[in-house]
Amino acid sequence: MVTEDEAMSRAVALAARGLGTTSPNPVVGCLLLGPDGDVVGEGFHAYAGGPHAEIVALAQAGERARGGTCVVTLEPCNHTGRTGPCSEALIGAGVRRVVIAVDDPTPVAAGGAATLRAAGIEVVTGVRRAEAEKGNVAWLTAVRRSRPYVTWKYAATLDGRSAAADGTSQWISSAESRADVHVLRGTVDAIVAGVGTVVADDPQLTVRDLRDGTLAIKQPLRVVVDSGGRTPENARVRDAAAPTWIVTTAAVGAGPDGRVDLSALLAGLYAKGVRNVLLEGGPTLAGAFLGAGLVDRVIGYVAPKLLGAGRTALLDAGVGTIADAVELDFTDITQIGGDLRFIATPHPKES
Amino acid sequence: MVTEDEAMSRAVALAARGLGTTSPNPVVGCLLLGPDGDVVGEGFHAYAGGPHAEIVALAQAGERARGGTCVVTLEPCNHTGRTGPCSEALIGAGVRRVVIAVDDPTPVAAGGAATLRAAGIEVVTGVRRAEAEKGNVAWLTAVRRSRPYVTWKYAATLDGRSAAADGTSQWISSAESRADVHVLRGTVDAIVAGVGTVVADDPQLTVRDLRDGTLAIKQPLRVVVDSGGRTPENARVRDAAAPTWIVTTAAVGAGPDGRVDLSALLAGLYAKGVRNVLLEGGPTLAGAFLGAGLVDRVIGYVAPKLLGAGRTALLDAGVGTIADAVELDFTDITQIGGDLRFIATPHPKES
Repeated sequence: MVTEDEAMSRAVALAARGLGTTSPNPVVGCLLLGPDGDVVGEGFHAYAGGPHAEIVALAQAGERARGGTCVVTLEPCNHTGRTGPCSEALIGAGVRRVVIAVDDPTPVAAGGAATLRAAGIEVVTGVRRAEAEKGNVAWLTAVRRSRPYVTWKYAATLDGRSAAADGTSQWISSAESRADVHVLRGTVDAIVAGVGTVVADDPQLTVRDLRDGTLAIKQPLRVVVDSGGRTPENARVRDAAAPTWIVTTAAVGAGPDGRVDLSALLAGLYAKGVRNVLLEGGPTLAGAFLGAGLVDRVIGYVAPKLLGAGRTALLDAGVGTIADAVELDFTDITQIGGDLRFIATPHPKES
Repeated sequence: MVTEDEAMSRAVALAARGLGTTSPNPVVGCLLLGPDGDVVGEGFHAYAGGPHAEIVALAQAGERARGGTCVVTLEPCNHTGRTGPCSEALIGAGVRRVVIAVDDPTPVAAGGAATLRAAGIEVVTGVRRAEAEKGNVAWLTAVRRSRPYVTWKYAATLDGRSAAADGTSQWISSAESRADVHVLRGTVDAIVAGVGTVVADDPQLTVRDLRDGTLAIKQPLRVVVDSGGRTPENARVRDAAAPTWIVTTAAVGAGPDGRVDLSALLAGLYAKGVRNVLLEGGPTLAGAFLGAGLVDRVIGYVAPKLLGAGRTALLDAGVGTIADAVELDFTDITQIGGDLRFIATPHPKES
């Protein structure tokens, strides 16, 4: 027997297993408790087009769900998409009570709580809301802003360099940090890099299995921001390991600076179902995203090294004086291998 | 009644109270335990020329020290300097046993343990040695290398900038971080800055009381590295708040680059009794110290800000390629106000 609070904590953890494979859907976790409070079923939404978390849990529970409680991280959907509405499935299974962490903010899917209540089911919302919102931050941010959630990731020395004076950069960060980046890439829908980085470093921008180095089955879309269309024909980013989109001004339009319009780029990605983007540089592209207020989270791998010369991690963020600095808040600071990894969120840009 | 191990832990904590006022002497803490293990006296070395820790503790204990145990962080001195030898005082007081954390590495003061043993006193060494060495790291490093221990302190943004594009830098770091710097300054004998910093920012380089902002009674020596003698006559660093040494090539000699010879500068400071130096910039001077392998510790205040342009925290450290980066190890990572403060120690420079 578990409390509803404990069950929600477990549901949030289950939801996270879907990160990277559910877009354009959110991640969702669900526990079903029988009338005596025992866990009789659990599930998470694993991939778009697959069963929702509630349906997975109901299939496990069968008749044991009758008279029981559904604990779910997001308001059950009320619409027929690629699957039927979860609200109807819960009513049909005879669930007595539904505990929800976060309301569904999308007009098409919302209304599940109202349907449940109309069928005489007790509905409680807001249990462990902050924790569940954090687990779904990319999707929630994306649907609220109608553009993908953007994480800028970089690796640098203590003095902010991402390469030495002669251009060498392998490796700034530790093997442990580089492995952590592959885990991070596995949670996103698209990896974005500038053509400068592609020309300089020829990265493959793929997710590899940490145990044996093989390519992961699910690969994010690779996106090269390439205003002038100069991505080399033999660039590794063009290989068959993952899908790739080379974004030119001809494809999405140009901003006032003549380069790819980043808002149009993000709108294009959103239309393709991308909700969660990892921006991997280089410094000028990162500066353009930051300057436009289009970065939602920064993850920095800081190696305990000093260079005193070489390429800096960030350029041209549109900041001329200290009072206009992009301000952030640290949300996590961890040591990974010998490095320090921080996670920080920029303050909302004033308009 | 306390154990000898507990007593040593307390002695190490007492020793730290002397940081910043004992040079050229070490910091030392001492507890005296009576025959039944009760604490009958304690002391620390508070300032050069004042009584040693053992003498302070003996004065408290009086006759109660007879037959007891002396627990002390550093081997009792054996020589007559500005005060008499502590070894003789302990023998005279009838102490039965002496427990020492760290042997005295200086030829003139060492030999205390041998003198005590010759007088029939039990002597144990190495109790909480690592902890006591850490507390005395500046002095121990200084006497072993015959030059002051050097801490490079800087404040920067996440992208390694110490000023914005227009030169503004007030303030990169938080009020809490700036207060922490005043605590740090209070533990050193000298503060070193380059003339570029003096001309650009006109800092006073003093220690202020955190409660009311008044100048602390004890001020470190202010040192301006000024190869060409261009420190302005009205620079704040020349005011009456603290002693100042403007170091020109004429004063200490020039290195191969024609600028002040840093090893000669440190030798000059050592000769003045300075054991613990805080290097506060700017970027070029820090690069010269690091490139010469003359930095023992780095303390960085990293503000959660991004600039993308402006002066970097470090320049010209003599590193051309990634394999030659100055490598360090983090020893402490703490959040101070909204900032992150790290402490790191460079790997010894290979010769």
